[in-house]
Amino acid sequence: MMNKIFVFILFTLVNVYACAQDTIRISDFGLKPDTHENAVQIVQKALAFAKIKPGAILVFPKGRYDFWPQYATEKMYYESNTDVIPLRRCAILLEDLKNLTIDCKGSDFVFHDRIQPFTIDKSQNISIKNVNIDWDIPLTAQAEILDVTDKYIDIAINVLESPYTIENGKLVFIGEGWKSRWHGEMEFERETKFIASQTGDWGCLGDGSQNYKAENLKYGVVRLNYAFKRKPAKGNYLVLRHSARDHAGTFIVDSKNVTIENMNMYHNGGLGILSQYSENLTFKKVNCVPNTNKNRILSGHDDGLHYSNCKGQITVDSCHFLALMDDPINVHGTCVRVMKKKDDRTLLCKFMHDQSIGFIWARSGEKIGFIENEAMNTFGTAIVESFRSTSPELFEIIFQEPVPTTLVEGNALENLTWTPDVEIKNSFFGSNRARGILMSTPGKVVIENNVFESSGSAILIAGDANGWYESGAVTDVLIRNNIFKDPCLTSMYQFCEGIISIYPEIPKADAKKPFHKNIRIENNEFHPFDYPVLYAKSVDGLSFTGNTLIRSYHFKPYHSRKATFTFDACLNIEVANNKFDGEILGKNIKLINTSTKNLKIGKSQGLVLEK
Amino acid sequence: MMNKIFVFILFTLVNVYACAQDTIRISDFGLKPDTHENAVQIVQKALAFAKIKPGAILVFPKGRYDFWPQYATEKMYYESNTDVIPLRRCAILLEDLKNLTIDCKGSDFVFHDRIQPFTIDKSQNISIKNVNIDWDIPLTAQAEILDVTDKYIDIAINVLESPYTIENGKLVFIGEGWKSRWHGEMEFERETKFIASQTGDWGCLGDGSQNYKAENLKYGVVRLNYAFKRKPAKGNYLVLRHSARDHAGTFIVDSKNVTIENMNMYHNGGLGILSQYSENLTFKKVNCVPNTNKNRILSGHDDGLHYSNCKGQITVDSCHFLALMDDPINVHGTCVRVMKKKDDRTLLCKFMHDQSIGFIWARSGEKIGFIENEAMNTFGTAIVESFRSTSPELFEIIFQEPVPTTLVEGNALENLTWTPDVEIKNSFFGSNRARGILMSTPGKVVIENNVFESSGSAILIAGDANGWYESGAVTDVLIRNNIFKDPCLTSMYQFCEGIISIYPEIPKADAKKPFHKNIRIENNEFHPFDYPVLYAKSVDGLSFTGNTLIRSYHFKPYHSRKATFTFDACLNIEVANNKFDGEILGKNIKLINTSTKNLKIGKSQGLVLEK
Repeated sequence: MMNKIFVFILFTLVNVYACAQDTIRISDFGLKPDTHENAVQIVQKALAFAKIKPGAILVFPKGRYDFWPQYATEKMYYESNTDVIPLRRCAILLEDLKNLTIDCKGSDFVFHDRIQPFTIDKSQNISIKNVNIDWDIPLTAQAEILDVTDKYIDIAINVLESPYTIENGKLVFIGEGWKSRWHGEMEFERETKFIASQTGDWGCLGDGSQNYKAENLKYGVVRLNYAFKRKPAKGNYLVLRHSARDHAGTFIVDSKNVTIENMNMYHNGGLGILSQYSENLTFKKVNCVPNTNKNRILSGHDDGLHYSNCKGQITVDSCHFLALMDDPINVHGTCVRVMKKKDDRTLLCKFMHDQSIGFIWARSGEKIGFIENEAMNTFGTAIVESFRSTSPELFEIIFQEPVPTTLVEGNALENLTWTPDVEIKNSFFGSNRARGILMSTPGKVVIENNVFESSGSAILIAGDANGWYESGAVTDVLIRNNIFKDPCLTSMYQFCEGIISIYPEIPKADAKKPFHKNIRIENNEFHPFDYPVLYAKSVDGLSFTGNTLIRSYHFKPYHSRKATFTFDACLNIEVANNKFDGEILGKNIKLINTSTKNLKIGKSQGLVLEK
Repeated sequence: MMNKIFVFILFTLVNVYACAQDTIRISDFGLKPDTHENAVQIVQKALAFAKIKPGAILVFPKGRYDFWPQYATEKMYYESNTDVIPLRRCAILLEDLKNLTIDCKGSDFVFHDRIQPFTIDKSQNISIKNVNIDWDIPLTAQAEILDVTDKYIDIAINVLESPYTIENGKLVFIGEGWKSRWHGEMEFERETKFIASQTGDWGCLGDGSQNYKAENLKYGVVRLNYAFKRKPAKGNYLVLRHSARDHAGTFIVDSKNVTIENMNMYHNGGLGILSQYSENLTFKKVNCVPNTNKNRILSGHDDGLHYSNCKGQITVDSCHFLALMDDPINVHGTCVRVMKKKDDRTLLCKFMHDQSIGFIWARSGEKIGFIENEAMNTFGTAIVESFRSTSPELFEIIFQEPVPTTLVEGNALENLTWTPDVEIKNSFFGSNRARGILMSTPGKVVIENNVFESSGSAILIAGDANGWYESGAVTDVLIRNNIFKDPCLTSMYQFCEGIISIYPEIPKADAKKPFHKNIRIENNEFHPFDYPVLYAKSVDGLSFTGNTLIRSYHFKPYHSRKATFTFDACLNIEVANNKFDGEILGKNIKLINTSTKNLKIGKSQGLVLEK
């Protein structure tokens, strides 16, 4: 505790020393690994020093560092697809920084309570590498299923990392500054670590499961008394979901040229890495996976890598995702609804998804698209003159030119400037709740050399301006050389109509003017156990060529869609040069609102066409 | 988390409401019990409101409230007999407050990390009542002894409340923001909860015990490999001491008229209640005891009630003390050493105990005594004109009149203004490390109707200006109607020369001018198992009358002092009207440097006089 004077002296010494070279050691500021003391304040000092030393490398000697909310900067951030709370606790905040590398040398950064490990705000040329992010007491719990009967299920909870209590018969987890009731669960198979098939968002305990009555057999073993309508398997694991989605693992906002490499994100309190209004983002060997050293099956609280309104080049290379409680990758923009046309250049608009509000949605000079609500066609664009928030939900936008005269209240706007090119390669999408990749950007998209064991669809290309208000239409997507293994689509989640599901939410799809364009699915390997491989709605230009489909029998077919391929309101489709190994189910093409002249089937495909 | 706006609205409502009456409910500020959220900030708001509402009662509806270091006010306090650290974390800080009652309605206040639960600074007419203070992860650990062999001891540790690790063969406890190596221990008997006899500061594991090598048999069971020279008993408990003495449980400073009632101080990180430069303090039913609901044997980290440089009336009524790691009650002033006589009215002085520095030691108008070093006689007094700290250890003091010409460098000063009257009654002094009561004040002292089961001396009247520099001489002490049960003096600690030990540290006691005066020990019941009942050094006027001594055989005699009574350099002693039941050991009076004419022995006492 007398260290403060010592730190001050060292700080002065470091001052002299570090001017001579670029490496700043956190130990020079008085922070040693493995002490369990709160690192927050000392890291703040080191970052303040880094600010006056552009180009520096901040090094953490390998070890364990602990971060507590005390002294963490609390900032008002509107974080996309995240609960709105007054202040976010930023454990390590890089703000207005340029040209900084943080090399953690393989250290464990252990966080406590609800907190955001890294925040990169208004910064450029930032690199973070070689770090493991975890919590001693995670914000999600897990249990091993000890016994399953018609009347109850017994579960074992590691009380060292998930202390709990039972209140009014309900299981309530207790952490470092919070108490949180169990509200949902996912079942993972003991050996494979797959989400149990035909569970997913259908649930693994059946309807009414939250009417259970918990009973403590001993501290760490809980009997859930209820005649569960679906029964999980003895020996499997349950991830017990609780607590809010209130902090990202890493939040990148208003920043440019950010590289994250060799990061094991073993846990977090929301989205893994949330990038928002940022440009040129490279994530290599970022793993959102369970910490197997701790016998964990749980990993991140929600999504893995979430990109909201980004631009430039997004690269995801050699990343792993397992046991997340939401999609590993989600790339999208944010649509807003026109509430009022104040004059021919001025619109009052509203954010429509209550977790995505309060953004500076546009800046002068940015290009905005106008979208009608039925076929979701873009019927015009205009350039922004000014933007003004009037409340967290509402803003006024003025354009440099008159908006289209056909625009009516209820139409949607899309910001076409904040749309990135995306490359996702060499990555592993294990069994996570929901889909593998959600992709909604008009930029150039390449998804290649990945392996998918997704519980739901491996890839979902959605886009809507009616429900989630996540834009936008794709125009150039290449999906090649990936392996879609048989766990893909073993469970159901929203919009999962095929291993690859192209499912924009369009109230009245216009078959003449499809929403999405130019999607090529080439040279991939699929291992379907069920019918739907590809479902596509409202696409102009869709090829499925050179792929190999190999029938799997590892799972029981269940999907209501009994077609290998479904094309709904599409133009210019090609299915050619694919190989079909084994008794592929259906081996059929279902056309809906799509004329056969728009479908080109290659030679020897042996597919049955259904209308 | 959206509660802040709600709190603000409520605050406004409360404003209107509370003007109509005096009760402020913490729940009106948005704090509900049992949520495990951090109460610190909301309590700060309530106290700020209380400040503009003198006479208010702040009520905590019964339940559990959690306090974390985050948002706690960090203040630079020099706390007496406590490690010097840069800033103390004050969870609940009452500063410049008047006429406030805090009624916690029997709530559990649970603290996290190193922190000071209550701080009362520059406040008057403060009452705190009905509260239990505890830690989930205490700053001291305990273990049950599972097995004892010649080669090792196996101990069980409750890892839910004392997580640990083993580093280089040593047992290291891990808490909420700290890691701390085991450095000492006390053995408590399983059934009686007494400190094992003949251990105490002699140790319960023998010399060299810290050369053990720890081995994890399983998490929660540790084998301490070492041929321990003393062996604790299987089934007994060890309190495993670790961590610094850095925060009091309650710190009262520069305050007046403070009442604490019905407080269970189950744990803290230093002294229980430290009162310093404060006046008129009443503690009723303040219990520094283990939380038996948690199967704890450990209680506070160090002393129970510690009074340093107080004045006015101190009352301790119906308080319990058990398993503390230092004295339950210690009342003393702070002597300082004269370093330099700058002129006939100006002295440069130094604080001599490194845990007791930095005080505003004197104020204009206060009366200071000058003490010589050998017999520790006060050879003059003077009134302060001014005081100025020159460093945490040093200060300059200027007197209104010249200091005695005989004063030399190395002499000591005592502040005679900050000397309280003390009444300690109806209290229970269980088995704690060290003594029961340490008393050093010239004020009127009454110790009555208490029960002592102290491990060391029940009462120590010390006073020194050479070692601990804790003043001062007593002038009026009445010890009556107490029961000194047989555990008293079962173990040895510093200055423990009798069940009642009057042991000022005087290099050359002057038998003509004793240091202490006027001590009456009347109508008490003693249950000695060993020789020394009363030891007195340098007292003028000491009576031991009307007491009953009943021989106990529960413990084996061991004390090196083989005299029931010892008087060293004393004047005017009376031993009369005492009853001796059973084979009282010694039944003798040892006179040292004391003439028989100064000893009046009553009729039929049957005591052997030794010289």
